[in-house]
Amino acid sequence: MKVDILTLFPEMFTGVFGSSILKKAQEKDAVNLNVVNFRDFSSNKHNTVDDYPYGGGAGMVLMPQPFFDAVEMLTKETEKKPRIILMCPQGERFSQEKAEELAKEEHLIFLCGHYEGYDERVREHLVTDEISIGDYVLTGGELGAMVVTDSVVRLLPDVLGKAESHIQDSFSTGLLEHPHYTRPAEFRGMKVPDVLLSGNHAKIEEWRKKESLRRTYMRRPDLLEGYELTKKEQAWLEEFKD
Amino acid sequence: MKVDILTLFPEMFTGVFGSSILKKAQEKDAVNLNVVNFRDFSSNKHNTVDDYPYGGGAGMVLMPQPFFDAVEMLTKETEKKPRIILMCPQGERFSQEKAEELAKEEHLIFLCGHYEGYDERVREHLVTDEISIGDYVLTGGELGAMVVTDSVVRLLPDVLGKAESHIQDSFSTGLLEHPHYTRPAEFRGMKVPDVLLSGNHAKIEEWRKKESLRRTYMRRPDLLEGYELTKKEQAWLEEFKD
Repeated sequence: MKVDILTLFPEMFTGVFGSSILKKAQEKDAVNLNVVNFRDFSSNKHNTVDDYPYGGGAGMVLMPQPFFDAVEMLTKETEKKPRIILMCPQGERFSQEKAEELAKEEHLIFLCGHYEGYDERVREHLVTDEISIGDYVLTGGELGAMVVTDSVVRLLPDVLGKAESHIQDSFSTGLLEHPHYTRPAEFRGMKVPDVLLSGNHAKIEEWRKKESLRRTYMRRPDLLEGYELTKKEQAWLEEFKD
Repeated sequence: MKVDILTLFPEMFTGVFGSSILKKAQEKDAVNLNVVNFRDFSSNKHNTVDDYPYGGGAGMVLMPQPFFDAVEMLTKETEKKPRIILMCPQGERFSQEKAEELAKEEHLIFLCGHYEGYDERVREHLVTDEISIGDYVLTGGELGAMVVTDSVVRLLPDVLGKAESHIQDSFSTGLLEHPHYTRPAEFRGMKVPDVLLSGNHAKIEEWRKKESLRRTYMRRPDLLEGYELTKKEQAWLEEFKD
């Protein structure tokens, strides 16, 4: 997979793209992460990429020309049409399903604004997707692009090693994870539940299933709407409700 | 405000914490961002911070001791109880309201795991908040901690300059932003709407209000539930529905 990031703050990406799974994925050639300063595509002599909004008002707006020209250059050798993703608060809410969808692509291009608006022609005629990572205001699209990149790249074949792939993915099992405990069995007076020290694997399995359901019921009852309960889970749920 | 980040990947934070608004906020002494490798708090001779889960199963679990000891050291001189925030998929969904709540605090401490589970005693007896930035799986809590830090720090007094504070905050006005346009008036055959070039400010204002409502209706009708419509907006809404 090839990932191009268009940003005015390329230095923001060094730490995240140079560590952990994203670093390993690049070393394994599973992904090619390319951060581009779209100011380099400005066609005016002052190298500006923004201007005042037509119709007046505060704030600046990113001009269409640098984005169109940058995307054109970056897709010159791309055969399959790439996904061109605008990071913005008005976008579709990002989800695990969307990550899985994007993980099937060959080429992603992210457009990241920073405190400024996008010219509407970029939305209407250039991008294929508009994504928001959540209902909160960030200074720019850069953190969103990192979040989407991390969630997509870890789904690519051979990227996660044995150690990392054991994370129980809360959103793929349908329920939240059960509680975990490790050494010591007693820490500052706080003890690990007896069942986990019992060696009785059937009981441990049952405890985990029940606690997973309990946590989902307490914290994210909305996840239970699409979940098919077994008879035993139905009984547990009644118990929690009492 | 003081922000401490406990992580095993401190190098991930350099780009984001050293650029843009977060950099300026530190230069203005509005915030003190401190990234701590909690491996330094391991009390065992191999410097490990994780161990196998009690009860068996794949994956590793972060031990409680390094987190408790690190938080104890970091809060020695804190008078008001800090917010101790665990980044995890099971947490409360992060929102702009939560960012505003956290912006009133004096001291935030983030605990970031990375592919591993947290010992339940950390959740039950150490943290004050568990936060998830969205329903998608990330490799670790670090990107979430950056997202929360950015959204909170930009709300602190005197952090945003004039240029940056003009971003229309989609989630504070109740509606999504109207479209923006800037130069050129025609780009590759794509034209700016005539009204924006008309100089008629009343008409421009009306166009913007209508397009803001249209966009909200098309993309995020859920936002209209809590929004009080004027008579004119009500009429526009009927028009869009047709």
